[in-house]
Amino acid sequence: MASWVIEHQALREISKEMFIGLGYSEFQASMVTNCLVEADMRHLHSHGVAAFTTYMSHIAAGNLKLDASEPTTIFETPNSIVLDGHSGVGYVIADFAVKKSIEKAKTSGICITVVRNANHYGFAGYWPEMIAKEGLIGITSTNTVRCVCPTRSAERNLGTNPISVAFPVAGDEPMFLLDMATCVMAHGKLCRSQIFAETGIVPADVIIDGSGHMLTDFKKVLDLLHNGDDRSSSPKPDTGGLLPLGGFTEIHSGHKGYGLAMLVELLTAGLAQGIPSKFIPLASEGICFFFMAIDPALFGDAQSIRDHLAYVIEEYRKTEPLDPNLPVLMPGDKERFSREKAISDGITLSQEIVDILYVVAEQTGKREKLSSVLKEVE
Amino acid sequence: MASWVIEHQALREISKEMFIGLGYSEFQASMVTNCLVEADMRHLHSHGVAAFTTYMSHIAAGNLKLDASEPTTIFETPNSIVLDGHSGVGYVIADFAVKKSIEKAKTSGICITVVRNANHYGFAGYWPEMIAKEGLIGITSTNTVRCVCPTRSAERNLGTNPISVAFPVAGDEPMFLLDMATCVMAHGKLCRSQIFAETGIVPADVIIDGSGHMLTDFKKVLDLLHNGDDRSSSPKPDTGGLLPLGGFTEIHSGHKGYGLAMLVELLTAGLAQGIPSKFIPLASEGICFFFMAIDPALFGDAQSIRDHLAYVIEEYRKTEPLDPNLPVLMPGDKERFSREKAISDGITLSQEIVDILYVVAEQTGKREKLSSVLKEVE
Repeated sequence: MASWVIEHQALREISKEMFIGLGYSEFQASMVTNCLVEADMRHLHSHGVAAFTTYMSHIAAGNLKLDASEPTTIFETPNSIVLDGHSGVGYVIADFAVKKSIEKAKTSGICITVVRNANHYGFAGYWPEMIAKEGLIGITSTNTVRCVCPTRSAERNLGTNPISVAFPVAGDEPMFLLDMATCVMAHGKLCRSQIFAETGIVPADVIIDGSGHMLTDFKKVLDLLHNGDDRSSSPKPDTGGLLPLGGFTEIHSGHKGYGLAMLVELLTAGLAQGIPSKFIPLASEGICFFFMAIDPALFGDAQSIRDHLAYVIEEYRKTEPLDPNLPVLMPGDKERFSREKAISDGITLSQEIVDILYVVAEQTGKREKLSSVLKEVE
Repeated sequence: MASWVIEHQALREISKEMFIGLGYSEFQASMVTNCLVEADMRHLHSHGVAAFTTYMSHIAAGNLKLDASEPTTIFETPNSIVLDGHSGVGYVIADFAVKKSIEKAKTSGICITVVRNANHYGFAGYWPEMIAKEGLIGITSTNTVRCVCPTRSAERNLGTNPISVAFPVAGDEPMFLLDMATCVMAHGKLCRSQIFAETGIVPADVIIDGSGHMLTDFKKVLDLLHNGDDRSSSPKPDTGGLLPLGGFTEIHSGHKGYGLAMLVELLTAGLAQGIPSKFIPLASEGICFFFMAIDPALFGDAQSIRDHLAYVIEEYRKTEPLDPNLPVLMPGDKERFSREKAISDGITLSQEIVDILYVVAEQTGKREKLSSVLKEVE
């Protein structure tokens, strides 16, 4: 199948225009576009502009409110803030929360911000990176639509519940940026895998059906994840789903991934007094966010701390790989390499994603402009 | 093989006396014994009194300093404290750090405490539990002796690097207590497994040899983990080791377990400006601790928060199991059930652990007393 290349500035510009065409304000469109295009630049296409159709359907269903008010403060202390997102654009809510967290951590040393009634905020790593760019340690987590099964069950009631942490480090060492779903493979990554689409096969120990058997047929996987909640036929509406990190068995510690997913439910829905993933079926309305910003100066001279963080990372960079062609990486490396390549060579998009863009372009009168900025490649 | 039963009070009393016999002060002996016996009560025998011989060898080698001064404060803010443990008894250092964290969080809402030059502090969950008993959210992490291989490498340079989090919850719901090594299976759990000892086989995707092949022969596993660093013969001194959570392949997200282990190195050795696991070969001297205590009152009325945490947990307790005989559990449940059984029926110890106790009893003149409190069972 053909694939396409587009300059990142061009993708940002046209995406922003198309979001405005869909009813987003200039500000909302900027917020969502910046994060989606960053994802595509990092080869995280599951969190990139392919999300257009998802958001269109959420707006149509009333789960994503473009006319929501600015997030409001429910409770505040020098080290914390609790916000209500009013089911607005998740990116706008997260941006508001992160900026508050940074501001308060710069004054008080540390701030935890939790948000209820939020909405999808894209790839989690975007937000701690924003915090770490300000010289602070950044942490985030969010619960999500239900799609993961607790250990010993085939009930799909937990979110992919990512945890992301960024450390600002000194010198030449780039930012440490861990961004991981607490399941074996995240929803979006699985559904949009080119390899699984081509072979039709998903490896075992990634997803189970409603009876707890491994689901390895890609079409059935898509059916379960996309339509599971819309029908009353088999598979049962609320059963079958992704496995927690560690997989199905307790021998290989699937219960640890499940434990991390529960931890995320408590940090987000628990502390924000919001809705657990269990009650978030197909749109992200009502999910909750957790953010933390920590000033390294809490532990001494901030520069010395950043130097020592760099020292620890550099010691692990010396790890010898088993295969010299597959070097040992730090969290964030792969995405950074992709981003650098996207800046120099443009972003490569699959036919499937380009098809999505054309649907939106058609609807927003941008068809001609879109085709002028996309270049087909072999 | 025979097994033995002992009342938990009796095990606590004789263990304390034996630690005093080995040169521990009354206070040091109390601290270490309380935590070890709690582990045995919870069926976490890898972190129980079997550790006697380990500590004896560390004292003999000079890696565990019974005459170390009290932990000293390197740096302090209203929300943080950095301590030096002077390679003393890990339990005493952790107890000091946790009490400081609780005190400061009660005043300031939140406190992060990091410790360098620490030593083994037993099962991680003991410490957040102490914090949660005071009505605060407790978090801890520690780096450890090197035994885990980063993704794409067979170099054993990361610790088991546990993460433990406890939430105080309202009403009848017991404390949420997650306590997990960031590898598939922790060092101690693997070495002391009765099942692996009996069958001689360890499942694949738990540990690799120095060439990156799965190690499934239990004797070879023990040889690698116990003697790997003492010899120059094959397997190479610093290669072969445990796999991070998620296992060997990136498809099943071994890189996420590796990312969590690196995160722990940064939170502990990084922030405390201490030593990464890479340089901790066989004793725990120089490892670093991370603790956090968070007052739920940072997010509103503390009682409402604890109620909502209980609500979220209870919603997940309703999850239907695949097998009615294997109910879906919350982190901490298994250990709590074992603890309740240990209180009513005594602690069951294997012959191997009893043999360890007799070695120490012999050396400290407690042989007769030990045999009087142990009851042999079928």
